[in-house]
Amino acid sequence: MTTRLIVLAAGKGTRMKSAMPKVLHCLAGKPLLGHVIDTGLELNPASITVVIGHGADQVKETIKQPVQWALQSEQLGTGHAVREGLEGIGDNDTVLITYGDVPLTRASTYQALLDVCDDNNIGLLTLMMEDPTGYGRILREGGAVVGVVEQKDATADQLSISEVNAGVVAIKGGSLRDLLSRISNENAQGEYYLTDIHELAVKDGLSIKTVHPQDGWETDGVNSRSQLARLERIHQRHLAEQLMDSGVTLADPSRIDIRGTVSTGTDILIDVNCVFEGDCVIGNNVKIGQNCLISGSKIADGTEIRANCVLENADVGSHAVIGPFARLRPGTKTDSGVRIGNFVETKNTQVGEGSKINHLSYVGDAILGKSVNVGAGTITCNYDGANKHQTVIGDNAFIGSNSALVAPVAISEGVTIGAGSTITRNVPANRLSLTRPQQTDIDNWSRPAKK
Amino acid sequence: MTTRLIVLAAGKGTRMKSAMPKVLHCLAGKPLLGHVIDTGLELNPASITVVIGHGADQVKETIKQPVQWALQSEQLGTGHAVREGLEGIGDNDTVLITYGDVPLTRASTYQALLDVCDDNNIGLLTLMMEDPTGYGRILREGGAVVGVVEQKDATADQLSISEVNAGVVAIKGGSLRDLLSRISNENAQGEYYLTDIHELAVKDGLSIKTVHPQDGWETDGVNSRSQLARLERIHQRHLAEQLMDSGVTLADPSRIDIRGTVSTGTDILIDVNCVFEGDCVIGNNVKIGQNCLISGSKIADGTEIRANCVLENADVGSHAVIGPFARLRPGTKTDSGVRIGNFVETKNTQVGEGSKINHLSYVGDAILGKSVNVGAGTITCNYDGANKHQTVIGDNAFIGSNSALVAPVAISEGVTIGAGSTITRNVPANRLSLTRPQQTDIDNWSRPAKK
Amino acid sequence: MTTRLIVLAAGKGTRMKSAMPKVLHCLAGKPLLGHVIDTGLELNPASITVVIGHGADQVKETIKQPVQWALQSEQLGTGHAVREGLEGIGDNDTVLITYGDVPLTRASTYQALLDVCDDNNIGLLTLMMEDPTGYGRILREGGAVVGVVEQKDATADQLSISEVNAGVVAIKGGSLRDLLSRISNENAQGEYYLTDIHELAVKDGLSIKTVHPQDGWETDGVNSRSQLARLERIHQRHLAEQLMDSGVTLADPSRIDIRGTVSTGTDILIDVNCVFEGDCVIGNNVKIGQNCLISGSKIADGTEIRANCVLENADVGSHAVIGPFARLRPGTKTDSGVRIGNFVETKNTQVGEGSKINHLSYVGDAILGKSVNVGAGTITCNYDGANKHQTVIGDNAFIGSNSALVAPVAISEGVTIGAGSTITRNVPANRLSLTRPQQTDIDNWSRPAKK
Repeated sequence: MTTRLIVLAAGKGTRMKSAMPKVLHCLAGKPLLGHVIDTGLELNPASITVVIGHGADQVKETIKQPVQWALQSEQLGTGHAVREGLEGIGDNDTVLITYGDVPLTRASTYQALLDVCDDNNIGLLTLMMEDPTGYGRILREGGAVVGVVEQKDATADQLSISEVNAGVVAIKGGSLRDLLSRISNENAQGEYYLTDIHELAVKDGLSIKTVHPQDGWETDGVNSRSQLARLERIHQRHLAEQLMDSGVTLADPSRIDIRGTVSTGTDILIDVNCVFEGDCVIGNNVKIGQNCLISGSKIADGTEIRANCVLENADVGSHAVIGPFARLRPGTKTDSGVRIGNFVETKNTQVGEGSKINHLSYVGDAILGKSVNVGAGTITCNYDGANKHQTVIGDNAFIGSNSALVAPVAISEGVTIGAGSTITRNVPANRLSLTRPQQTDIDNWSRPAKK
Repeated sequence: MTTRLIVLAAGKGTRMKSAMPKVLHCLAGKPLLGHVIDTGLELNPASITVVIGHGADQVKETIKQPVQWALQSEQLGTGHAVREGLEGIGDNDTVLITYGDVPLTRASTYQALLDVCDDNNIGLLTLMMEDPTGYGRILREGGAVVGVVEQKDATADQLSISEVNAGVVAIKGGSLRDLLSRISNENAQGEYYLTDIHELAVKDGLSIKTVHPQDGWETDGVNSRSQLARLERIHQRHLAEQLMDSGVTLADPSRIDIRGTVSTGTDILIDVNCVFEGDCVIGNNVKIGQNCLISGSKIADGTEIRANCVLENADVGSHAVIGPFARLRPGTKTDSGVRIGNFVETKNTQVGEGSKINHLSYVGDAILGKSVNVGAGTITCNYDGANKHQTVIGDNAFIGSNSALVAPVAISEGVTIGAGSTITRNVPANRLSLTRPQQTDIDNWSRPAKK
Repeated sequence: MTTRLIVLAAGKGTRMKSAMPKVLHCLAGKPLLGHVIDTGLELNPASITVVIGHGADQVKETIKQPVQWALQSEQLGTGHAVREGLEGIGDNDTVLITYGDVPLTRASTYQALLDVCDDNNIGLLTLMMEDPTGYGRILREGGAVVGVVEQKDATADQLSISEVNAGVVAIKGGSLRDLLSRISNENAQGEYYLTDIHELAVKDGLSIKTVHPQDGWETDGVNSRSQLARLERIHQRHLAEQLMDSGVTLADPSRIDIRGTVSTGTDILIDVNCVFEGDCVIGNNVKIGQNCLISGSKIADGTEIRANCVLENADVGSHAVIGPFARLRPGTKTDSGVRIGNFVETKNTQVGEGSKINHLSYVGDAILGKSVNVGAGTITCNYDGANKHQTVIGDNAFIGSNSALVAPVAISEGVTIGAGSTITRNVPANRLSLTRPQQTDIDNWSRPAKK
C-alpha cells in the first residue's frame, strides 16, 4: 500500500494575532506543523504534501522536514485546499488528510484510519463529545455513516448528536479526486468543504468506517494562544507521565517542560520547574535541582545538578556536583568527580577527573587536567579583542583566587599560581608563579567624606 | 447623576492572623482596598468615602488614592458603618456601597447597579450559587425582591433558595439615609445590618432591581489567607488569558504573575514562572526566559531576556540578549544590540549600541559608548566609602578581564585595558593601559601540607 | 494498653522501576516508610516492627528511627508478612498493622482504630469510594461487617458495594496470632491474605468496628512514580493550607514545597516556587522572593530574602536584605541590618551589624565586624590547597573592589583596602593598605587583528 499524506496548512490564524502563520507557532519548542509532519513520517508515507497559503514562504523556510509543498493561493475551503495537494497522487494510493494546526494526533490513530481504508471504504476520524457545539455531527442510518452536517445546517435532532467529525480522512486517491471534482461551493461561505465528499461517497456506494482517537485532545486544533497553551500543558503532562512510567521521580509533574527528547536511566530525581530542550541524555541516579534549564546535554551516572543551573550542549561526567547557579555553555565536557560551583561559567572547556571550579569563575577555551583546583574569581582571558586563545592547566595545578590567566598560556602540572596574579607566560611544572606588588600601608588614612 | 462611593473597610480580619488590617493585604501586589478604590475611580464618582476602623491609621498611611476617610470607631455592623460614611452625601446623589475586602468586582458590574438605580429603584448585586450555605438569601414574591434573609434566620424553604446577596448596593442618598435611620440592632449580634434596609424599602414602595456579576469570583471576599491565595490565582489566570488574547504566547498560563501592568507588542513569548511588577512595556518579538523577574522595565523589539534574569526599572534596547543570570538594576539603559551576560550586575548605567558585558561583572554609575567589550570579572569601583563616582568608557574600548576601574575615571575611545589592571587615571584614546607587576616564578615550590 | 505496630514493608514495587525498594522512595524529602514510622511514633507504641524483604539491607541502612526489623524472606502474602512480625507481641497487646507504602495516614486515624479495638472487637479502616474498582469490598449483614471480598472473587452485587477495605487493622495480639494460624493459601496466588482473618474472626464471634479516615488520600498507597507524585502534591497542598491558616501569605499554594518543617511568625510573605528543606524558622514580617531554596535556616524578623537565593544552614539576622542571587552556605551567621547582594557566596562566616557584601564576592571562613563594606569582586582566599584559614575584618573597614584577602589575615577596624589589592599581611587599624603597580600607558596601541 502506498500511503501519501496531505497536510492542510494554509490558514492564517487570525485569532493568534500574530505576524507568523499559525502552523509555525510552537508547541513544546516545535512548530505545530512540525509535529504533524513528524507524526506523519512515522507512517513511512511515499510523500507528504503540505498545502500552504498564508505566510507560505515563511513556512517553507522554517520547516526542514522532507515534504512537498503545494500552494493554495486563494482560501476557497478545505475541499479546494486538498484539491491543490493532489498532484502526484495515484488512484490506488491511500491518502491521509490531516491538519497542520492539530498537532497531537497519535501515529497509531492515523494508522487505524489507514487500516480501515480500501477501495470500498473511507476512514473517518470521529469522536464523542459531551458538548459537541460548533462541530460537524456524524449522521448515521442503521449504524452506517451517511453524511456529516455542520452545526449551522443541523436540525434540532441532529444538534443532539454527540459524535462529531474530527476532519481527518483516509481515502483512495482515485475516489478522492473524483469526489472533490463533484463538491460544490454553493453555500453561505462560498467555499468547497472537504466534509461534503462523505455524502457523495455514500451515494456512490462507498462505506465510511469511523475510528476514534485514544484521547480527545488528539483532535484538538489551535486557533488561539489560549488553546495553544492548553494543548502545551496537555502535551507536557503526557510527557511527564511517560517519564514517570519509565522510572523517573518528578517532584511535580505539572512543573516540568520538555521541548525535545529526554533519554533517562533509572532512579533519576527531577525537582520542580526544570526545562529540557533539544536532545538530553540523563544517566542513572542523577538528581536535578529546581529551576534548571538543561539543553542538548548529557549527564552521566550519579551526578547532581543543583538548583538554578543552565546547561547548554554540555557533557557532564559521572559523580559530578554542578551548581547551584552554574552555567555550562557549549563544549563543556567534564570527567568524573568534577565540581563546578556557584556563579561559574564554563565554555568550550574540558575539565579532568576530580577537578574543581567552585566559585565565581569564568573558564573558557580551556583544558584542565586532573585534580586541578581553580580558586574563586579566576578568569581565563581567552579573548584579545579579535581572537580566542586556549588555556591549558596541568594535573594537580592550584590556581590562586582572583587570578587572570591570559591565553594562550600553559600552566603545567603541579604549578601553584599565587592569589591575585595575572599570568601571561607559561609556567613550567611544580613552580609557584605569581604577580604580586608589594603591600603598601599608609597610616591614619582619612577616607573621603560624604559630599 | 452624581455618583458617590462608600467603601466599607473597618474590619479586622481575625482569620488573617495578621498585625495588618485585612484590607491592606495585597492581591497582585496591591492592597485589597486599593483594588476596590481603583475600580471605583473608573466610575468617575464625585467622591469615594472609605469607612475605616481597625488599623485606621495604617490604612490611611498606605492608601494613596484620593479618597475621604470616615471612622467607624465601634464595630456595630454594616448598617452602622455606612451611616458613618454618609457625610457629604446629598439626597439626590446615587450611592454605591462596596467592600474593601472584595477586590475583584468589575467596574461594569458596579455600573450596571448604578444604571438600574433611581428614585424608585435600588440596585442590588446578587448571584446564583450552587451551594449558597452561609449567604443571605434573596426573597422574592411574584418575581419581585421583597427582602434578604440571613442563613441563620432562614426557614428550610428559604435555605433552598440559591440566589444570594452579594452585598453591593446602589441607592439614592436620601433613601439610604432614611432607611438606615430606621433599621434596628435588635438581633443576636446586637448589630445594625445594611441588608435590613431592603425589606423596609420594599414596604416604602421602592423596588429592588438585581444585577448579576459576569463571573462569580467578582463577589468573593477575603477572610483568610487561603481565600486570598485563591482569588490571587483567579485574578492571575484572568490576566494571563487577557495577555494570550492580545497575542502573547505563555508557556504556562498557570505560572505567570502580574503585579502591575504589562503592555505588550505582538509575538511575545513568555516562558514559565515569570513575575512582572510595576508598569512594564514589552515590544514585538521579545522572548523572556523562565524564572525572570521584570519590574517596572521596558524591553524593546526583538530582544531576548534569557532564564533567571532580574530587571528593575531597566530600559533595554532592541535586539539585545540579556542573561541568563543577569541583574539589571535601576537606571540601566541600553541601546540596541547590547549583550549582558551571566552573573553581571548593572546599575545606573548606559550601554551603547553593540556593547558587551558578558561575564561576572559589576558595572555601576557608568556610561559606555558603542561596541565596547567589557571583559569577564570587570568591576567599576564606583564607591569610595562615602560618595559614588562615574566611569566613562568610549566607543570600541576593550576592557581586559579581571580589571578594576576606579571611578571617577574616563577610558577614551579605542583604549585597550590590559587584563588584571586597576585603572585609576584617565586613559586617552587608543592607548593600551595596564598595571602589571612582573611575573615571578619560584622553582620546586612546596605547597602547604594538610594539617 | 500496650500498643505495638507492625509495618509491612517487604514489597519490591516493580512498577516504580527502581533499584531501590519502594518504601525508601521519598515524599516531601522523607522515605515513605519514614512517614509511616514517624506517624506511628506519635502513638507512643511499645514497639514498631517493620517487616522487610526486598532490599532489606538498604532499608535498614536508610531508616534511622528506633524500630525492630523482621525479615520476610519469601513473599507469601500479607498474612504471612504479619506472621513474620509477631515476635515479641503479647496476647493482650493491641496490634496496629500498617503499610510502609501508605505514607499519609493521620495519627488520629490510627488512634481511632486503636480506640475501637478490644478483646471483642477488631478495628478496620474502610472508606467509601465512588469508583471502588480493584479494592476489596466490605461485606455487611444487618449493618455488621461479616467479611471482605476481593474484586476478583466478588459477585455482581458485591461489586456494587462502595465501602472498601483500606487494609489497616487494630487487633489484639492473641486473636491475631490465632487467626493468622488458621488462614490458608488455597487461592489463585497461593498467598496468605491478611484480609482472610476477618471472616474467621466474625465466625469466632468477634465484631469488626470500622473507622473512616478524615480524607481519602490518607489510605492511598504508592505503587508507581505517578502515584508518588500525586501524593506529593496532595501533601504539599495540605502543608500549604496549614501555613496559610497559621497566617502566612503564599503567592501560590500550588507552587511551594516543604520537605521538613517551617516554623513561622506572623505576616510572612512567600513568593512563588520556594522550596524549604530541613528545619527552618522564619520570623515576623519576613518576605521571601520567588525561586528561593531555604534549607535548615533561620531568618529573623523583618528580613527580606530576594528572588533566586539559596540558603543552607544559614542564620540570618533581622532586617537584613539578602539577594537576589545570593548563596549563603553553612555557617553563615549575620547580625541585623546586613546586606548580602547578587552573586555573593558566603560560607562559615559571621557578618556584623549593618555590614554589606553587595556584589560578586566570595567570603568564606571569615569574621566581619560592624558596618564593614566589602566591595564588588572581593575574594577571601581561605584555602591554600591544603588547609583553610580565617579572615578577620574589623568594624568600619572598607575593602576596595576586586581585592583578594589571603588568609590567615586580619584587617583591623577602620582600615581601607585599595581596589584591586592582594592583601597578605595584617593591616593595623585605620590604615590604607593596597598593592598597586604603576599604571603604564602605551600610545597608539594596535590591537591584535582577527585571524
